Amino acid sequence: MATQDSVTGLVEPLLAGNRRALARAISQVEDEAADSHALLAALYPHTGRSHIVGVTGAPGTGKSTLVNALARAFRGEGKTVGIIAVDPTSPFSGGALLGDRVRMRDLAGDPGVFIRSMATRGSLGGLARATGDALSVLDAAGFDRILVETVGVGQAEIDIAAAAHTTVVVEAPGLGDEVQAIKAGVLEIADVFAVNKADRDGADHTMMALQMMQGLAPATQGHHRPASGHGHAEPGAQGDGSWLPPIVKTVAVRGEGVAQLAGWIERHREYLAATGQLSRREEARAANTLDHILRDRLLAELTQRLPDGYLRQVAGEIARREHDPYSVVDRILSAYGCP
Amino acid sequence: MATQDSVTGLVEPLLAGNRRALARAISQVEDEAADSHALLAALYPHTGRSHIVGVTGAPGTGKSTLVNALARAFRGEGKTVGIIAVDPTSPFSGGALLGDRVRMRDLAGDPGVFIRSMATRGSLGGLARATGDALSVLDAAGFDRILVETVGVGQAEIDIAAAAHTTVVVEAPGLGDEVQAIKAGVLEIADVFAVNKADRDGADHTMMALQMMQGLAPATQGHHRPASGHGHAEPGAQGDGSWLPPIVKTVAVRGEGVAQLAGWIERHREYLAATGQLSRREEARAANTLDHILRDRLLAELTQRLPDGYLRQVAGEIARREHDPYSVVDRILSAYGCP
Repeated sequence: MATQDSVTGLVEPLLAGNRRALARAISQVEDEAADSHALLAALYPHTGRSHIVGVTGAPGTGKSTLVNALARAFRGEGKTVGIIAVDPTSPFSGGALLGDRVRMRDLAGDPGVFIRSMATRGSLGGLARATGDALSVLDAAGFDRILVETVGVGQAEIDIAAAAHTTVVVEAPGLGDEVQAIKAGVLEIADVFAVNKADRDGADHTMMALQMMQGLAPATQGHHRPASGHGHAEPGAQGDGSWLPPIVKTVAVRGEGVAQLAGWIERHREYLAATGQLSRREEARAANTLDHILRDRLLAELTQRLPDGYLRQVAGEIARREHDPYSVVDRILSAYGCP
Repeated sequence: MATQDSVTGLVEPLLAGNRRALARAISQVEDEAADSHALLAALYPHTGRSHIVGVTGAPGTGKSTLVNALARAFRGEGKTVGIIAVDPTSPFSGGALLGDRVRMRDLAGDPGVFIRSMATRGSLGGLARATGDALSVLDAAGFDRILVETVGVGQAEIDIAAAAHTTVVVEAPGLGDEVQAIKAGVLEIADVFAVNKADRDGADHTMMALQMMQGLAPATQGHHRPASGHGHAEPGAQGDGSWLPPIVKTVAVRGEGVAQLAGWIERHREYLAATGQLSRREEARAANTLDHILRDRLLAELTQRLPDGYLRQVAGEIARREHDPYSVVDRILSAYGCP
């Protein structure tokens, strides 16, 4: 079959490290081309070896530069690195705004690095689906570490973070109070904090704000931490099996602190493996993937049973308030649900 | 039936303007309580009269203050105002961070204003669904204008903006280059731009950046605009039936420019009605609602046919790479799809 041939034609060179096959495979899954599900099915047995690192943070924190620097740090240890830059701010243009050209200059020509930007395709969940599938392709292609960069204040980004093994939340000094408040939301998804641009005024204030949110910093300035008790906890794996996110100062443009950050990512990876959380995260991710595919397939199968233009027609009736959407769904399912 | 009674028990007082019934109804649809679909079905014929205004922008632009000021402006014209503050940055805590208490102090006690915060419930699409349903409840309750405030850089927010009739994109001077770049993404969803904090340095720069993105400003500073041609276009409804988004300077804390902003929202509303775009937007929104409800219902019906714990078990198999998710979905649908 033509489909089978075209899938086989990509799978083998991709697994052998061919970059053009890799780029074409990602385009196919991103576009949901006709063969893309067969392709993902063929690649899936080869996945599960990459460590996936989500890097998220507000605009202005220097995420792109930090992702770059992290990639170089991993390369220095001989690891191969895939980078996916997710740009949810560009839903309609199809282009990606994040500093791709800068990155390209920096890491271009290194066969151990593969960079891809993804923009929203306009449908809710579409970006998370496409990113998850692109992750699977890079994973099958054998990259040791995959960095997924997102702008960190939307639901789609939180879903993408949920697909990562280790989530790095990037903060920076002086982004204003409202930006600081976002921390409350991302605190719960962070495995490691990076305070980037740490050479700027206010870096210590940002560090302290994060520590206070973790319930660790002394309540008053200049007051010494108690020698024991909760305030004394060291970051990382705790005695009770939990993980206290470390806070690492970085100056990504000069590479400062990046080795420490890479080190904490590795320690978190070891922690996940040692506590069995890695397989639990993988199961949650699989359940999420399953849920998305099932919804898409069920709706596609129902739509095939409907008369042409039926959904459009009832949408018009709903818009004119002739019917409510819940009653319409009842009617559709009883007439066309299952034969 | 108890269900029918509890729905009727809310619908009548809600339509009569009872605030407690309104608050309870929104909670029911937000939580997807057992009766919530019957409730929405009963309310739906009473919807379609509110003008829905999405207000979106990056953290630090002063959106909450501007929404407040807009609410006062509409109240000054005798219109009733519903406010939904969507907070996607707080996915797990269930709390909302946006300046609710400040707002409450300011608008509390006015029976013509109703304010509600909504936080993400952890699932992709859940927030957009809950917000859409809450909009329907406020619409049925008879509010003339509904302001939906979102942090504007995620896919969920773009979907919520798609539910609005008029989308106001809020910018502010001096938020840094990366924030400015976000404009490229939101440019396409903006019906009206507000440059808030316009008393700050850089406000003119922000205005000019927006005008340049619209292809209107002269390419070089100091160069006079041509007396005719594209550069001369006035904002608002164009001769060819399109809409050129106006750019309005505001200082929300002092109420400056807010009446002009409210005026442009009204003009956009008239434009939508005059060109037939209002009904097209309503149809697109109905189609989107239908799509979400159908997916949820189809998955729920399938899940009922599956053995207990089946999805969890196959998620484990997928996570262990024993099967790929696409083949698993094929298997589930052929065994349990339709009887």
